Amino acid sequence: MAIGLPIIALVFQVILLVFYTAFGSVENKSSFDFSMFEFTHLMIFVGFALLYGFLRRYTWTGIAQNFIIGVFAAEFFILYASIITWIHASAKPFEVRLDGEFLIRADFCAGAVLVSFGAYIGKVSTAQMLVMAAFEPLFYAVNEHLLVDMIKTIDSGGGLILHAFGCYFGLFASWVFSPEKGKNHKLNSTNYNSNIFAVTGTVLLWASWPGFNAALAGTDSYYAISNTVFGLFGSTVSAFIVSALINDGKLGMVSVINATLSGGVAVGTSCVILHQPGWGLFIGFVTGGISSWGFEKLTPWLEKTIGLQDVSGIHNLHGIPGIIALIFSLFLVSSEQIAPQIYGLLCTLGLSIASGAIFGLFLRLTHEKIGPEKFFVDEIHWIDC
Amino acid sequence: MAIGLPIIALVFQVILLVFYTAFGSVENKSSFDFSMFEFTHLMIFVGFALLYGFLRRYTWTGIAQNFIIGVFAAEFFILYASIITWIHASAKPFEVRLDGEFLIRADFCAGAVLVSFGAYIGKVSTAQMLVMAAFEPLFYAVNEHLLVDMIKTIDSGGGLILHAFGCYFGLFASWVFSPEKGKNHKLNSTNYNSNIFAVTGTVLLWASWPGFNAALAGTDSYYAISNTVFGLFGSTVSAFIVSALINDGKLGMVSVINATLSGGVAVGTSCVILHQPGWGLFIGFVTGGISSWGFEKLTPWLEKTIGLQDVSGIHNLHGIPGIIALIFSLFLVSSEQIAPQIYGLLCTLGLSIASGAIFGLFLRLTHEKIGPEKFFVDEIHWIDC
Amino acid sequence: MAIGLPIIALVFQVILLVFYTAFGSVENKSSFDFSMFEFTHLMIFVGFALLYGFLRRYTWTGIAQNFIIGVFAAEFFILYASIITWIHASAKPFEVRLDGEFLIRADFCAGAVLVSFGAYIGKVSTAQMLVMAAFEPLFYAVNEHLLVDMIKTIDSGGGLILHAFGCYFGLFASWVFSPEKGKNHKLNSTNYNSNIFAVTGTVLLWASWPGFNAALAGTDSYYAISNTVFGLFGSTVSAFIVSALINDGKLGMVSVINATLSGGVAVGTSCVILHQPGWGLFIGFVTGGISSWGFEKLTPWLEKTIGLQDVSGIHNLHGIPGIIALIFSLFLVSSEQIAPQIYGLLCTLGLSIASGAIFGLFLRLTHEKIGPEKFFVDEIHWIDC
Repeated sequence: MAIGLPIIALVFQVILLVFYTAFGSVENKSSFDFSMFEFTHLMIFVGFALLYGFLRRYTWTGIAQNFIIGVFAAEFFILYASIITWIHASAKPFEVRLDGEFLIRADFCAGAVLVSFGAYIGKVSTAQMLVMAAFEPLFYAVNEHLLVDMIKTIDSGGGLILHAFGCYFGLFASWVFSPEKGKNHKLNSTNYNSNIFAVTGTVLLWASWPGFNAALAGTDSYYAISNTVFGLFGSTVSAFIVSALINDGKLGMVSVINATLSGGVAVGTSCVILHQPGWGLFIGFVTGGISSWGFEKLTPWLEKTIGLQDVSGIHNLHGIPGIIALIFSLFLVSSEQIAPQIYGLLCTLGLSIASGAIFGLFLRLTHEKIGPEKFFVDEIHWIDC
Repeated sequence: MAIGLPIIALVFQVILLVFYTAFGSVENKSSFDFSMFEFTHLMIFVGFALLYGFLRRYTWTGIAQNFIIGVFAAEFFILYASIITWIHASAKPFEVRLDGEFLIRADFCAGAVLVSFGAYIGKVSTAQMLVMAAFEPLFYAVNEHLLVDMIKTIDSGGGLILHAFGCYFGLFASWVFSPEKGKNHKLNSTNYNSNIFAVTGTVLLWASWPGFNAALAGTDSYYAISNTVFGLFGSTVSAFIVSALINDGKLGMVSVINATLSGGVAVGTSCVILHQPGWGLFIGFVTGGISSWGFEKLTPWLEKTIGLQDVSGIHNLHGIPGIIALIFSLFLVSSEQIAPQIYGLLCTLGLSIASGAIFGLFLRLTHEKIGPEKFFVDEIHWIDC
Repeated sequence: MAIGLPIIALVFQVILLVFYTAFGSVENKSSFDFSMFEFTHLMIFVGFALLYGFLRRYTWTGIAQNFIIGVFAAEFFILYASIITWIHASAKPFEVRLDGEFLIRADFCAGAVLVSFGAYIGKVSTAQMLVMAAFEPLFYAVNEHLLVDMIKTIDSGGGLILHAFGCYFGLFASWVFSPEKGKNHKLNSTNYNSNIFAVTGTVLLWASWPGFNAALAGTDSYYAISNTVFGLFGSTVSAFIVSALINDGKLGMVSVINATLSGGVAVGTSCVILHQPGWGLFIGFVTGGISSWGFEKLTPWLEKTIGLQDVSGIHNLHGIPGIIALIFSLFLVSSEQIAPQIYGLLCTLGLSIASGAIFGLFLRLTHEKIGPEKFFVDEIHWIDC
């Protein structure tokens, strides 16, 4: 597989180049809010990158795989979403029509694929991740289309579309993949500096998240901003509380790095329709505590009992908070909207679990070349490390 | 005090949740400038965090304490400021009405409390800092109300309201607290990597500061941006000059990390009413030199002679530059405005010193559990460090 | 030269203070887009700083020299450009009239000077770099004036004006300077952590670049944003491909840190007039591959064969991509515009090479105090390192 990475990347890029060149155009909309796009872009390509630098001897590869996965996922999403739009509105000729909102949606899809990546970071090759970046956006785009255009689920910050989808794809892929010997790997760990890089990613994500949840919210964007600020306040406080309660007054860095962010996910579905800061604070507070408990207790327990490996704990930061986001939205929407919310959840779970399981099978079948002695080490990926 | 942190945080958060839920609402103002809020948010929760990572074996705790102090200070400020507004305009029913400007003011208050934190970083528990985050914003909010609504002091970038208030609160708290054995502590020091994290915080703060000073400046925001850029140019140059003069041609990282930023403080009071780039450059230049001298000479001297411990040197970055900002503003305002400027200074000093001294007493009384052998070490705060 | 740094900085700053104070004014234009300026500012003073932290024992000095060079270059540019404008429109009295666009142009000039710095980073004193920051902006400003006001070259993202100019100035300065013993210096190298700081700079630059290319693009800024996003997608993919092909399936961090960014340069000239995402993707793709090959093969070869030392490889990230940007623009502009594009290239090359060679002579003549045993070491620049 030594040349798997360049060959696959080349083939993918040539296919994409043909499509973009043949059918692409750029549309200059005056309503484009550069700063919200920009903070979304920063979150995906800087914040996630630093967060995925948390492993002691995999910081380089974590950052680089985040980079190339994000790029390909965004490129493939725009292609798939254009095809879906074309099929949906069948009269028009096919085109890839890039306005600013499309760029933001592409970054959201990249975010979902990078969430999935977190489940098996350190145990997969870059070539395998390129295949994921081509495969997962198709199902993401279908799911986004179903929820936004057909079912009309309210989900402006992507609690379901991004976080839950990305998480359950990744978890089921990891479960099917199931590389047993990765358990208790001595390099599946952090050190003093790698945690500082990761927590820098955390505060960058935390501070930028309001723009992310507001990026697709249109004229009501301030509600999204305000609720996201308060949701993150709540999850930060409860992450500290629960971590300190679990650890006899001390803190666990895993909670500070991750669970503090879960409030941003938990308000993600209803951030535009919620006009009450106390509720945002509350939902963030509840979610942050559950997330912190999940990182410190649930993830190790799931690995021990059902063999579910989740290296970054995406279940606690994206899966559970995404489900909470959906449940919480049920209290805010009108009664006619309750069904679309629940159908949206079911559709997301179904598509993500099914496609994730297929991808897990791919990981399992292409796994022979990367034994556990090559897990979590930068050296096998770099010439100059 | 092993469970002081979670218990105090829980009690505080429940009180805040009740208030926000009972009385809160979000107001969607179209004039909200997301990007200026966002850069303010980045400064408080990313820039300050990295800056407070400067200690060699306290980077984790510095970043985490910055995080939770900032969140609670912002939450408490919004509550206190709402109460003050309600008392001031006594006709209305009580409400916590969140518009975008209120979020920015809350971040400013968090900034002030984090400035205070710098005086005793490494020598205090997170639980003590939670008490500070509940206590100091009350006096901050009173002072802000007096200066903005009653005295009508001009201070759009918070030279007095934020920097001087936060500094003198912290300095007098530290002086009353006075943990003698913290002097010359071998871990009260930096290393190669911790300084790189801190200087990354510096350049992030430095580059974002124009948005910070402009965030509450309204339609004249460009003046604030331009003057802040030039004030920071000036302080950067003089920080390099003075540091090199003191050190026989070599530089001191303490000056590059801190004194370079002092121009942003020094133009903070008059950045909107100043329309002349030369003056902004000049005031930054003067301040940066004084600040650099303060870090390299004054702080050690004050510790030796009067026992004033100031771990981060907040006196040189926030106190002195805040006073300079006020003095400088006297040359720019109309003659009728001179009295309000001076009354603003006196009010700020009186309230910050009085409340800081009280808090120092609290620190002294609750100090028994944390002896100097536990100063500046991450290990006592974390399970996984 | 122990006091060269403070004396030179003081003299320069006093001269600039006199000019700014005597002739400066700030103009508050409502059309100023703060966020695009801000991301430009972040790129120059945060992104570049981290990127220049890549050397294992020169991270402190790389960041600090980036800081002071950027400040002085911006200050001197505003002065020179004001003088040129005054000469050009000879009727008006002389003034330094600062609007927001001028601040952005100053940051662009700082960017060019910092590109040049990359050619000899580690082998020059801060005092020498101050002279560069006063010298190079004069020629930069003349070239910018000629291309924008006289020749009317289209170059909104500065492919020629910034990147090619900065690169060829730096390369010819380095060639004339030619400190032989710097070759194969054991500290001219990176380590695990210094590469992480640098790649953090990379992703920050990469994510912010759309704002940079759009900052001077006016109402068509969205085209610049979209094309820059796609150009960077392309260069990222091809940097991974070519690096992996060269290194038998492994990646070289030098390519991931640098060549991934070259697409931002390559679309810099025509990003506003290009309305087709496929072309932006294609040009980025071609450029990233060439850039990666350049870093891994061309730069060592040029050093061996013609003695051209290029510590950061600016030729591969700014020079070649800048030329490609110009060539690519020829396919997009109208036939009458082809001549101005080519004249712009020739003018840029002529001015940058001539002025760079002169500066290289200065470097050679003032070099005696800094022997190769002082290359690439922070210790000689700092008291606390």
